[in-house]
Amino acid sequence: MWKSSEGWSMRHALMLSLALNVWLLLRLAHEREYNLGTDENFRGFCTEEKASSFLSNSTSNSSAIDEFDDDQGRVINLDHGDPTMYESYWRQAGDKTTVVISGWQAMSYFSDVRNICWFLEPELAKEVIRLHKIVGNAVTEGRHIVAGTGSTQLFQAALYALSYGGTEPISVVSATPYYSFYRQVVEYMKSGLYKWAGDASSFNEDKPYIELITSPNNPDGFMRQPVVNRSKGMLVHDFAYYWPQYTPITSPADHDIMLFTVSKCTGHAGMRIGWALVKDEEIARRMTKYIELSSIGVSKDSQFRAAKIVKAVSDSCEHAYDSNFFEVSYHVMSQRWSRLRDAVKKSGMFSTPKFPPAFCKYSNRTFGTQPAFAWLKCEGDIEDCESFLRDHKILTRSGKHFGMSPKYVRISMLDQDSNYDLFTKRLSAMRS
Amino acid sequence: MWKSSEGWSMRHALMLSLALNVWLLLRLAHEREYNLGTDENFRGFCTEEKASSFLSNSTSNSSAIDEFDDDQGRVINLDHGDPTMYESYWRQAGDKTTVVISGWQAMSYFSDVRNICWFLEPELAKEVIRLHKIVGNAVTEGRHIVAGTGSTQLFQAALYALSYGGTEPISVVSATPYYSFYRQVVEYMKSGLYKWAGDASSFNEDKPYIELITSPNNPDGFMRQPVVNRSKGMLVHDFAYYWPQYTPITSPADHDIMLFTVSKCTGHAGMRIGWALVKDEEIARRMTKYIELSSIGVSKDSQFRAAKIVKAVSDSCEHAYDSNFFEVSYHVMSQRWSRLRDAVKKSGMFSTPKFPPAFCKYSNRTFGTQPAFAWLKCEGDIEDCESFLRDHKILTRSGKHFGMSPKYVRISMLDQDSNYDLFTKRLSAMRS
Repeated sequence: MWKSSEGWSMRHALMLSLALNVWLLLRLAHEREYNLGTDENFRGFCTEEKASSFLSNSTSNSSAIDEFDDDQGRVINLDHGDPTMYESYWRQAGDKTTVVISGWQAMSYFSDVRNICWFLEPELAKEVIRLHKIVGNAVTEGRHIVAGTGSTQLFQAALYALSYGGTEPISVVSATPYYSFYRQVVEYMKSGLYKWAGDASSFNEDKPYIELITSPNNPDGFMRQPVVNRSKGMLVHDFAYYWPQYTPITSPADHDIMLFTVSKCTGHAGMRIGWALVKDEEIARRMTKYIELSSIGVSKDSQFRAAKIVKAVSDSCEHAYDSNFFEVSYHVMSQRWSRLRDAVKKSGMFSTPKFPPAFCKYSNRTFGTQPAFAWLKCEGDIEDCESFLRDHKILTRSGKHFGMSPKYVRISMLDQDSNYDLFTKRLSAMRS
Repeated sequence: MWKSSEGWSMRHALMLSLALNVWLLLRLAHEREYNLGTDENFRGFCTEEKASSFLSNSTSNSSAIDEFDDDQGRVINLDHGDPTMYESYWRQAGDKTTVVISGWQAMSYFSDVRNICWFLEPELAKEVIRLHKIVGNAVTEGRHIVAGTGSTQLFQAALYALSYGGTEPISVVSATPYYSFYRQVVEYMKSGLYKWAGDASSFNEDKPYIELITSPNNPDGFMRQPVVNRSKGMLVHDFAYYWPQYTPITSPADHDIMLFTVSKCTGHAGMRIGWALVKDEEIARRMTKYIELSSIGVSKDSQFRAAKIVKAVSDSCEHAYDSNFFEVSYHVMSQRWSRLRDAVKKSGMFSTPKFPPAFCKYSNRTFGTQPAFAWLKCEGDIEDCESFLRDHKILTRSGKHFGMSPKYVRISMLDQDSNYDLFTKRLSAMRS
C-alpha cells in the first residue's frame, strides 16, 4: 500500500510498533469482558417467526436465556451461520492482519473514479483477484468486480441489474431446498422489477426468468447446476461456500454473475464485505448503480480490512503450510463433520446427506463436501424437527423455510468450539 | 472500551505505541502518492444524465480530464457533496482518532443481541447520545437508535417501516426544491410499498402519506417545517445538516424519526455510517428488519471508527476551545460563504439565498445558516445555469433535478481548499 521509495527503515519501525500494539491489545483483551461474538443468546436475523417465538419463550422462561452455570440449561443457537469458529485461527495469526486507519484517511465517498465500481478500493480488487488465482475457484480475467455490503446486497444488485427496463416483474426461482433468505429478500420491497416464483424445478413459463444457483448449496450442501435451462434464463451464481475448506475445488467457476463474501470464506461476517465477478460491463454498471442508490457505496474501512485479511489468507497459502488458512479450516470442518456423523449414528434418530468424493485441484486431496451447514433430518415419528431440537435447547432453522418438510432442519457448523461440542454431546445422547 | 482493572501502564504503553504508529504513518503518507479524496476527476454518483454526459465529454476531450498543469483547464467537480474539506482538520487532530482493529475482532454478525437494533455497536450508540447532548440538536431520551449504511439506507428503512402492511403504495412527498436523490431512491425499486408523489406543497389527498423534511434543506439551505399538515401524515426528518458549523442550533429536535450521518457532521463519507433516532419501538424494529434484509447489518469496522471520531468531536467540544471541531468548521464555512458572496457580487451574474440570523444555543452566537451547498441562481438571460458553468469547467447539479428551474444549480461548499479557491476565482471573473 505504501509507495515510499526510501521508507524501508520507517516501515520496519512501523511493523515493530504495530506488533507492540497487537501484543498490548491481546493482553488487554484477555482482561476485559469481551462481548463480541461470544454471547450465545443472540436473537437477531432468524426467520421472522423464529425470532418472535424465541423472544416470547425467553420472556416466559428466563432460565433458557440467563442460566449459564449449567451447560444443560444453555441455549445453543445454531439457527444462523455466524462464522465465529474462525476467531481462533485469526487470534493465532497475530498482528499481520491488524488494520490501522487514521482519522483523516478514507473520508471521500470515492475510491477509484476511473473504475465502473467507483467505490471499490483498488487494494481489495487486487487481493480478491490474487486469492481466486491461488485457489482456482473462479475465472477473474475479463471480469468487472463490484463490491457490496455483503453478498446479500450484491444479490439484490444483481436482481436489479438483470430486471432493469423490463415491462413486467421477472420471475426469480431457485431449486428447493433454497436459501430461506432469498425468498424474503425478493419479496420484502414488493418490487415491480421482479417476483418470487419458487422452486426452479417446477418453473415452466416461456418468459424471462432469473435462476439463483448456490453451490455448494445452502442449506443441504450439494453442488448445484441450473435446473430450468430455458432460453430466456439469466443466472446468478452464489459461491459463498465454494472454498476449499468446504468442498473440492474441481475447476474455476466461469459464469456471468458470481457472488462471493468474506463472511463464509474467512469468517469476517461483521465486516459486511462481498464482491461480484461480472462478465458484462452494462450489468456491472447497473449493479454499481443499485449500490449507489441503496447505500452510496460500501464502507471503505471494511474494504481496507478485508483486503488485509484476504491478503493474509493468500500469503498463508503461498508461504506457510502449517498455518495455511484453508488447510487449518479444512481440518476443523473435517473433524466437526466426523463428530456429527458419530453423534447421528449413536442417537439413531437422525440422518444427514452423503456427499460423493471429488478431487480438489487446490489441495490435491480427494474428499466429499463438508458443508458450513448440516441438513439434518429427523427420522421416525418426529414431524417437526425444529421444535424437537428446541425442546433440547438447540435452536435450528426448520426445513419449511427452505421450501421443504419440517422433518428437516438446517444447523450451523461454524459456531465456536464450546457450542459445537455441547451440540454434538446433546445430539448423541438423544434416543427415541 | 477496555475494562482492564490493572492495565493502566499497558494502556499508556499502547497509547505511546499508537502515537508512534501515527507519526510513522503520517511520515509515510507524505511520501506516497496518496490518491484517496484528492482526485478531482471523480465521475460517480452524479445524477444519471450528468454522469453519462460528463463521461462522454471526458472521452471526447481528454484535456478536461488529464491536464492539471494549468488550473484554467482543470475541471472542478462540485456536483455532489463530497466533504473532503474536513480532511485538514482530522490531519491536524493527530492520532487520537486512529483506529486499530485486530484480525480476530468483530467477526460475528451480531453486536448487541439484547438491543432491537442487534447490529448496533454499543460504543457508537453511547457516543451518538453524548454528542447530541453536548450539541443540543436532538432529543435522545426514550429513543431507539438504528444504525445504517449511511442515512441513505436509513431513509429507505424508514419508508419500509412506515409503509409496512399497507394495502396500496403510500405517497412520498417533499417540498421543492427537494434533495434530488430522494426521488431516485423512492422510485428505483418500483416498490409496491410506496411511490413518489412529488412536491409536498401540492399534495392534497385524504390518504396516508410520508413527508420528507430536510432541515436545513438540501439544496437551498433553508430551515424547514412540514408543509402538508394533514391528519394521515407520517414524517421523516433528515437532519444531516443540523449541526452548528452549518446552522444555529435553536432547540433540540424532537420528532418521531430523525436521521443523522457522519458524512456531513464530521466529513467521513467513506465510512457510510448513519443513525436514526426513533420514538416508536415497532418502527425501530421494522427499520432494523429492513437493514437486515438489505445488508444483514452495518459494517462493524466503520461503527468502531465512527464511535472514535464522534468521541473526538465531543472531547474537542468539552476540552479544547481552539481545536473545537464545530468552532473550526464554523469558521471555515463562514469564510467560504463570505468569499462566495463576494464573488457573486463582483460578477453580477448570480444570486444566492439570504438566511435570517438566529441565536445558536450551542455556540452562543447569532448567525445565519451557512449551508453545505450553495443554491446559486443565474440571473439575466442564462436559462441553463448548469451548462453555463460547465462551459467554465465547473460541474454542478441543475435545479431541474430538485424539482426547480434550470436557472438554479446546487454547488458543494465542502470540497477541498484548492478547488474551492479556484471555483470562487473563476466565478468572480465571469461577466455577462
